[in-house]
Amino acid sequence: MTQDAVQDAQKPAEAGPPPRRRRGRGRRPAAEVRSDVLDAAGGLLLDAGMGSFTIEAVAERAGVSKTTLYKWWPSKGALALDGYFHAVESALAFPDTGDLRADLTAQLRAFVRILTLTPAGRVIAELIGQAQTDPELSAALLERYSGPRRDLAVLRMRGAQAEGRLRPDVDPEVVVDQLWGACYHRLLLPNLPVDEDFADSLVANLWRGIGT
Amino acid sequence: MTQDAVQDAQKPAEAGPPPRRRRGRGRRPAAEVRSDVLDAAGGLLLDAGMGSFTIEAVAERAGVSKTTLYKWWPSKGALALDGYFHAVESALAFPDTGDLRADLTAQLRAFVRILTLTPAGRVIAELIGQAQTDPELSAALLERYSGPRRDLAVLRMRGAQAEGRLRPDVDPEVVVDQLWGACYHRLLLPNLPVDEDFADSLVANLWRGIGT
Repeated sequence: MTQDAVQDAQKPAEAGPPPRRRRGRGRRPAAEVRSDVLDAAGGLLLDAGMGSFTIEAVAERAGVSKTTLYKWWPSKGALALDGYFHAVESALAFPDTGDLRADLTAQLRAFVRILTLTPAGRVIAELIGQAQTDPELSAALLERYSGPRRDLAVLRMRGAQAEGRLRPDVDPEVVVDQLWGACYHRLLLPNLPVDEDFADSLVANLWRGIGT
Repeated sequence: MTQDAVQDAQKPAEAGPPPRRRRGRGRRPAAEVRSDVLDAAGGLLLDAGMGSFTIEAVAERAGVSKTTLYKWWPSKGALALDGYFHAVESALAFPDTGDLRADLTAQLRAFVRILTLTPAGRVIAELIGQAQTDPELSAALLERYSGPRRDLAVLRMRGAQAEGRLRPDVDPEVVVDQLWGACYHRLLLPNLPVDEDFADSLVANLWRGIGT
């Protein structure tokens, strides 16, 4: 892996300079406050994991009141998931070169770098793990993370399908499970490593087919 | 789904008649005791989930001493995973008709039936979930469940590869993630259902390829 690629993968862990606390009563635009909160939530999650993630700690780090956080987010899990999405969003954006296979490979390589070279992999594994016995967290996970990420990938593939670059009879939702889902499988059941060779093989298998 | 298929899928939940308790001191063959213990562990797990699964309850149900269980299994998780494997093993055996695509589809359909029509899906989801923050359970899961199940599928595919029924340049380990791993993805992040149509689409996508 190149140094650039590593730095690229580590971006979400940095999450910019810590937002300044504002002690005055001056009204800040809601969008700015929301963005500060998401930076704080994502940064805290990637720095310290779900074990140390509390509404109090996010409020402190973002310089906003707990009341504000509770007004916008129904639960700690919802805030964590929005923070996580926000932290990884730009690094996981789809390139669009007109070559769907190359674009899927590039995005999937960025995804495996984030899972393995930053704390994000451990964080999302713990969130998925905890969601199995926590219905509220599960609902937040599906609604705020896995659903939106799935939709982004499906949208991209439907566009390619309209341009004739993906078989018309393929359900893009199933492809999501066979690319990103396959990575989550190795993340959660790590019998084998998640790496860029794996990302390449996932796309190659699906693209060319495995049958003789 | 046919009634037969449903019954087939429900087999693991039944796990045969409860083993008789033996109060005498007569020595029973170790293999028989082990089999009773695995029946008891698998049955308890599928009846009541991981929340009620204890070494005591398995010992009681199998009619053996806790000392025996501790002698053979290093932890509760190890016993649970062996019991789980034992309970689903026969229902997940690979057919061998000489048609790999048909065999993979049939096995994958049996797998999704077990995940969705019996308590096994919830049990394995909870075990995988708990393993994300429990290193001992994680080690037991990889060694006693996901590793052996992965090996069974890979062995089957390598055989097919030797017979020219699977592309020689395909890594069967990656196919495992794109078939069974894709099912675990939907099980753990249930934005969409795990059903037999999904099983069919997984094999169809991989077999024919998705590119144009």
